[in-house]
Amino acid sequence: MQTITVRTKSKKQVVNISDLVAQQLPKGDGVVTVFTPHTGAAITTANLDPGTDLDLLDFLDGIVPDRAWRHPHNSKHAPDHLLASIIGPSVSLPYQNGQLALGIWQYVVLIELDGPRERTVMITAQKA
Amino acid sequence: MQTITVRTKSKKQVVNISDLVAQQLPKGDGVVTVFTPHTGAAITTANLDPGTDLDLLDFLDGIVPDRAWRHPHNSKHAPDHLLASIIGPSVSLPYQNGQLALGIWQYVVLIELDGPRERTVMITAQKA
Amino acid sequence: MQTITVRTKSKKQVVNISDLVAQQLPKGDGVVTVFTPHTGAAITTANLDPGTDLDLLDFLDGIVPDRAWRHPHNSKHAPDHLLASIIGPSVSLPYQNGQLALGIWQYVVLIELDGPRERTVMITAQKA
Repeated sequence: MQTITVRTKSKKQVVNISDLVAQQLPKGDGVVTVFTPHTGAAITTANLDPGTDLDLLDFLDGIVPDRAWRHPHNSKHAPDHLLASIIGPSVSLPYQNGQLALGIWQYVVLIELDGPRERTVMITAQKA
Repeated sequence: MQTITVRTKSKKQVVNISDLVAQQLPKGDGVVTVFTPHTGAAITTANLDPGTDLDLLDFLDGIVPDRAWRHPHNSKHAPDHLLASIIGPSVSLPYQNGQLALGIWQYVVLIELDGPRERTVMITAQKA
Repeated sequence: MQTITVRTKSKKQVVNISDLVAQQLPKGDGVVTVFTPHTGAAITTANLDPGTDLDLLDFLDGIVPDRAWRHPHNSKHAPDHLLASIIGPSVSLPYQNGQLALGIWQYVVLIELDGPRERTVMITAQKA
């Protein structure tokens, strides 16, 4: 397992980590699991045409119901955790010849929901 | 890794790909990762009682906030990418004796969000 | 693969299964896939500060659009399946020295959407 650090720059941000993940891949073929050990960030894949990162953040804001949250200390912070749980902390995808098998418009992204922070990302490649 | 092609038939469609995945499994036990290298389609599992596929598509339509999207060329297309990101491009699940360990009402599905198209699905089995 | 049973106690419940998963890990390092073979429950990670489990259930209730569902027998049951599909049936995450690589506030959870029931969880560890 390789561990990298991603420094996010704002409260909410979609960060393209495809190259950082790709740099950790061994030669050959297999599956790589990209995981973030945080409850205010998530990992998925995304289209990153111009503005689509901000569309994704607006989308996430827009699906948060208007509720009073129980989360202690700062109830406004609750949706960050809830969105992280439904997006999920990890994505698993194949690699071939040491390269991520992403689509041409597809990127591995870390979605920061409570930044700016230093986020840890754990990358585990397993040969198939 | 095995690569298959799924031809979708409408703009939005839930396609049961369980049998296509199962056909690619080796003998023995392990984990299979089912991944689609697209940003307008997603992979998950679903109940497929009659009409539940259409319920899922209505559900997804219903959670899209009413916003102006930045996505270039065709802003109405943005939610397809955003839904794909929150559902996710892959699912990993166990297989035993060369069979998917799905529940009795559970299927592996490709959710088409911007069809009809030919979609690639990559199936990687890893022995446990 | 190890199979465990989780007995849920209410219609909707967030159950911390981190310790149950951790008990099934072998020594050494790898990736563990935690999967539930049901269409009315889901697996992810979550923050579990007091009340945040109920916040998550309220959040999920709140994003269900107000629609007439086609799902047979009991249309009110449809959102349970739909939420399970978007959260997903599994999470994959690394383990090190036989310990889950979770963040300090992060737990592996089963989200019960149609309980109380006995739910099966399949845990497959693969050495990296």
